[in-house]
Amino acid sequence: MAFEFKNKDILELLLKGKREQIQEQIDDIHPANILSILREYNGDKLNLLHHFTDEMIALIIDYAEDDEKYEILSLFPSSKQMEIVEEMASDELVDLLGAIQPDEANEILDKMSREDAKELVELMHYDQDSAGGIMAKEYISVMRNMTVKETLELLRKEEPEAETAYYLYVLNESGQLNGVVSLRDLVISDLDVRISDIMHEKIITVPVHMDQEEVGRIFEKYDYLSMPVVDDEDRMLGIISIDDIMDVLRFENTEDIFKLAGIGEGESLNNSLKESISKRLPWLFVNLMTALIASATVNLFQGTIQKVVVLATLMPIIAGMGGNAGTQTLTIIVRGIALGELTFENAKRVLIKEVGVGLLAGTSIGITVGLLAFFWDQNPILGVVIGLAMLLNMIVATISGYFVPVILKKFHIDPALASAVFVTTVTDVLGFFFFLGLATLFIEYLI
Amino acid sequence: MAFEFKNKDILELLLKGKREQIQEQIDDIHPANILSILREYNGDKLNLLHHFTDEMIALIIDYAEDDEKYEILSLFPSSKQMEIVEEMASDELVDLLGAIQPDEANEILDKMSREDAKELVELMHYDQDSAGGIMAKEYISVMRNMTVKETLELLRKEEPEAETAYYLYVLNESGQLNGVVSLRDLVISDLDVRISDIMHEKIITVPVHMDQEEVGRIFEKYDYLSMPVVDDEDRMLGIISIDDIMDVLRFENTEDIFKLAGIGEGESLNNSLKESISKRLPWLFVNLMTALIASATVNLFQGTIQKVVVLATLMPIIAGMGGNAGTQTLTIIVRGIALGELTFENAKRVLIKEVGVGLLAGTSIGITVGLLAFFWDQNPILGVVIGLAMLLNMIVATISGYFVPVILKKFHIDPALASAVFVTTVTDVLGFFFFLGLATLFIEYLI
Repeated sequence: MAFEFKNKDILELLLKGKREQIQEQIDDIHPANILSILREYNGDKLNLLHHFTDEMIALIIDYAEDDEKYEILSLFPSSKQMEIVEEMASDELVDLLGAIQPDEANEILDKMSREDAKELVELMHYDQDSAGGIMAKEYISVMRNMTVKETLELLRKEEPEAETAYYLYVLNESGQLNGVVSLRDLVISDLDVRISDIMHEKIITVPVHMDQEEVGRIFEKYDYLSMPVVDDEDRMLGIISIDDIMDVLRFENTEDIFKLAGIGEGESLNNSLKESISKRLPWLFVNLMTALIASATVNLFQGTIQKVVVLATLMPIIAGMGGNAGTQTLTIIVRGIALGELTFENAKRVLIKEVGVGLLAGTSIGITVGLLAFFWDQNPILGVVIGLAMLLNMIVATISGYFVPVILKKFHIDPALASAVFVTTVTDVLGFFFFLGLATLFIEYLI
Repeated sequence: MAFEFKNKDILELLLKGKREQIQEQIDDIHPANILSILREYNGDKLNLLHHFTDEMIALIIDYAEDDEKYEILSLFPSSKQMEIVEEMASDELVDLLGAIQPDEANEILDKMSREDAKELVELMHYDQDSAGGIMAKEYISVMRNMTVKETLELLRKEEPEAETAYYLYVLNESGQLNGVVSLRDLVISDLDVRISDIMHEKIITVPVHMDQEEVGRIFEKYDYLSMPVVDDEDRMLGIISIDDIMDVLRFENTEDIFKLAGIGEGESLNNSLKESISKRLPWLFVNLMTALIASATVNLFQGTIQKVVVLATLMPIIAGMGGNAGTQTLTIIVRGIALGELTFENAKRVLIKEVGVGLLAGTSIGITVGLLAFFWDQNPILGVVIGLAMLLNMIVATISGYFVPVILKKFHIDPALASAVFVTTVTDVLGFFFFLGLATLFIEYLI
């Protein structure tokens, strides 16, 4: 008993053990562990996997990243592949089929039973990022007049997978959801009680077209283990389980962090150089455009800089601080939007607070910078110019940090995506404009 | 049946309904919904809550943020408070007691049974961010020789809370964990089978001092609904449930995003102006220090700028692009560290790739900027100077974007915390140094 199995020990077991002898030992190995061994092992991978049941291999594929799934499946001969596919949950199969070439996907679909294939094609039609795109078709439905005893017998017969077993659903003739019973409700109830007596009738459901990030928020709010997905007429279509939602939330969080840093969708640490370049270079060029705008602003004041070169020295402070203050505010706002915390009710209060932050931070940083510039250059007007420019730029920074993501959101653009570029462009351009503009106004006192 | 209850409808029910009449209707309302109604309601809150059982109020407190918990509890008279407290899970009580004044906490502890209070004080001794700090003491343990039938009878008698019921634990005489049975295992097994026959013996456990972020990663890897927490001798101390982990992951993700943007720990959208200023201003001053370093670098080359003012115009491009490329790399690395994806095995490959990105992106951006500068100023040497400076700075950006977080991690400093400041300082300072230094070298061709 230890915190985690040692992968090395498992590897040895799989390579050297005889199937009969090791069966009991490998039964409890978690598919996630086998997956990580598989990733590191450079020998014949099929040789490692031949100990496992189709069900276990289906689970290993389940835990694999989308682009690894087919790689693992295709280790096996074609007939065995179909046996594994039959053990896979429908949502996992959709992920697998979505990640491979259409002709490979069709090959697999052709070999499946017509009914299964039809169900899958239906699932594949939903937007990948919607509730329909991540739901599974497998769930247990029970009748309202069944007793707890009968239901327990049904479960013993059906042996549902863990994810499928958390809740049992009661549907009416039209397939509409009438009630839910959790496994816990079931085991704590007397055996002769009827499902209709213990089922919950007010059910929180997920509409099939809801965005997966929104679905994640509902899971976070209500702490359910799985939730039913319904169509516009409340007919039950499938379920989403919490382990899928954990993946969704991790993905969405990473995506938000990356977008804030100007990294294209879906980059990961393991991408190749070519993939990374193709995801980052476009954003660098977008940034180049905005840097050119800042540069053009400075260019307007070449004459002033020519006369007072110390201005060039102080420019990085103005741009840097404005960018930082703007990034702080925009990050707070982008995260507030992502977590659903920025609402109609608190929007005005948040805006006023951010302006307050700009005012107060701008005043204290402005005075500090002004004094530093004064002591350094012995010119009080230079201190006033940079201090005032700093104050103005910090206010601009917090205001644009607030409005840029809010406006992007209004236009249904992901606020994480372009906010940072916009805000730093605004703070660079206006920061230089305030600073060099004020310097131009007071030029006679600065020379 | 609808996607979510309308808060307005529930509010009306609670305010106007007679207890007997509405009992059945309010039984199924989710505590998270009542919490949001409570937050918005400005009248007598106690009046809304008097319909609910102590158990329900304990759940509402469970769903509340840490700083709201005591606010809700203290709506009630002192005797009722204790009844509610008795219904709360130990991990929730620890959160509540940790968020209030010590004397208020002691008052509550004094009124509890000595045994409960001792258990709580024990729990409160663990680091808030460790497994011990988020675990609950409540779990179901069963004997290995019990049958499934006997176990189901035990559950019907004990009526454990949902979170407590996912798994049943088998302990030996010393309290060490011998096996685990899931509720699903239980309901699909024959009634006369013994627990020892269906229990899993290879158990993945969480050491009590493990950091909560690490615990979150283990949950993400293995998809368990709850996990046992053990001490150094594998004695079981408590359990952590997936809903607590969802909160942990959300918190840690927000923290990482905020730290990358230079926002102090724990700021939220709802902080007051004073709180926000106190969390952001220190970082702005840190940034000011680094901006001064960049400024001092430029100052070294005042003579050069004096002679070729166009250099001042182009400075924002060098600094901006270096900062962006550095931020891209460091974000990839910080996230890779947070998700446990950056390992000893792939570290070198990732570094080489990042240098490759710097080289390729630097070359293409460098050539573009060089050509633009050439066409604009009609001076090929200016183009070469800025193009070369850009290339060098992009390589520096990706290298520092890699090493800064990796080195911070080595010194056990959260890489998200200070990486952005360090990296942009490096790219600003070296960017200006390359650009203005090269310009100084080639000054005779630039005038």
